[in-house]
Amino acid sequence: MVDLKFQHQDAPEGRLAKLGIQLPGAPTPLGSYVEAVQVGNLLFLSGMLPVVEHKAAYVGRVGRELDAETGRVAARIAALNALAALKNHLGTLNRVKRVVRLAVFMATAGDFNADPGVADAASDLLRDVFGEENMAVRSVIGVASLPLGVPIELEATFQIGE
Amino acid sequence: MVDLKFQHQDAPEGRLAKLGIQLPGAPTPLGSYVEAVQVGNLLFLSGMLPVVEHKAAYVGRVGRELDAETGRVAARIAALNALAALKNHLGTLNRVKRVVRLAVFMATAGDFNADPGVADAASDLLRDVFGEENMAVRSVIGVASLPLGVPIELEATFQIGE
Amino acid sequence: MVDLKFQHQDAPEGRLAKLGIQLPGAPTPLGSYVEAVQVGNLLFLSGMLPVVEHKAAYVGRVGRELDAETGRVAARIAALNALAALKNHLGTLNRVKRVVRLAVFMATAGDFNADPGVADAASDLLRDVFGEENMAVRSVIGVASLPLGVPIELEATFQIGE
Repeated sequence: MVDLKFQHQDAPEGRLAKLGIQLPGAPTPLGSYVEAVQVGNLLFLSGMLPVVEHKAAYVGRVGRELDAETGRVAARIAALNALAALKNHLGTLNRVKRVVRLAVFMATAGDFNADPGVADAASDLLRDVFGEENMAVRSVIGVASLPLGVPIELEATFQIGE
Repeated sequence: MVDLKFQHQDAPEGRLAKLGIQLPGAPTPLGSYVEAVQVGNLLFLSGMLPVVEHKAAYVGRVGRELDAETGRVAARIAALNALAALKNHLGTLNRVKRVVRLAVFMATAGDFNADPGVADAASDLLRDVFGEENMAVRSVIGVASLPLGVPIELEATFQIGE
Repeated sequence: MVDLKFQHQDAPEGRLAKLGIQLPGAPTPLGSYVEAVQVGNLLFLSGMLPVVEHKAAYVGRVGRELDAETGRVAARIAALNALAALKNHLGTLNRVKRVVRLAVFMATAGDFNADPGVADAASDLLRDVFGEENMAVRSVIGVASLPLGVPIELEATFQIGE
């Protein structure tokens, strides 16, 4: 299943190690759903939250209770949880062919624009792991509130290789 | 087209009957769109609203004008409309192989978290009809407002069998 | 690659010309993402904004700083940018088989419903270019804020022909 040609250091698992990133435990559902569903070569993940050990890492809205830099930290945690969910489902990140779609939902109070720079903290991590040539399309949307009061929710779809 | 092996009581239509659920009439568009589009084995539905006979069943935001329990009732009505749209498109729910993705948009005033428990009312109904092993990934997002002023909009994608 | 049978005036490029529409330059990313990703016959676009020459054409929320008619103009500009991104990726709009999914995110202050009539300005343009028989499913969602402060963001998925 795992092709030897992907075993070099530019494969996602190798890049992750080179970046010194240790993945958290895979997230678990907050309700009646699962964290990953694959149909053909498309893998859909549930909305990933900035949760550490099942607790909100940050609570508040970007531009109101939290500043943009905290939003970026939260977005990166959500992306790490996405990687953990992916790895839990696939066994290895090396089976990911590309990131297809990211929707970054950011809690704002309406007076702060949905800042692409905050969302970049998630996108940049995925780019560093899967490569510049495998970047996703993206939507950034400022919303009223998110589960657990967190500032960021990341919806991600991936293309999986054979 | 309909395989006999799916005709037993554990198939979606049988479960629906066992649950005593009678589906409403299929929803009709509020604008320039259609209710269902299938590409290959993926079936996409339009955002389903808690609408009964083309009128909003509830108007207001969860946690402000409406409480969480009313949000749950609205979420269930939206899910029933999703089933009706599916059945209208496919002829029978037995052709659904699994629920792939749910995005539950919930109108909130920003001071109420997007409550996964409200969204569960939609997810639970789909689980009861399609089975525990066919649960979807899910995102729950608290938003400023929805069409007709309703509290819930449900975006759903399904995998369709041969 | 381009089949002669699609070269008649009812093909998307012919319709576009008949409508007298000249597409703007293709949009460019505001961050770490790309504008289009194709997986099999599904083409995903990034959230398209009402941006003209990389600047917000309108800033504000529909029903508050901007009226519904301005929202419609913004939705149409976002749809034109979607067409430009599609053409940039595919070479010709004639390769589009159908519009699959539209999610129209509309900035509102919560006291204005997410108006399907505003979203129709985007849907109608895509219907005029790709045909009534190729209309998409659609979700309309009123949100707190969008990138650059724009009133509309359009997420679109297309089915691509051989």
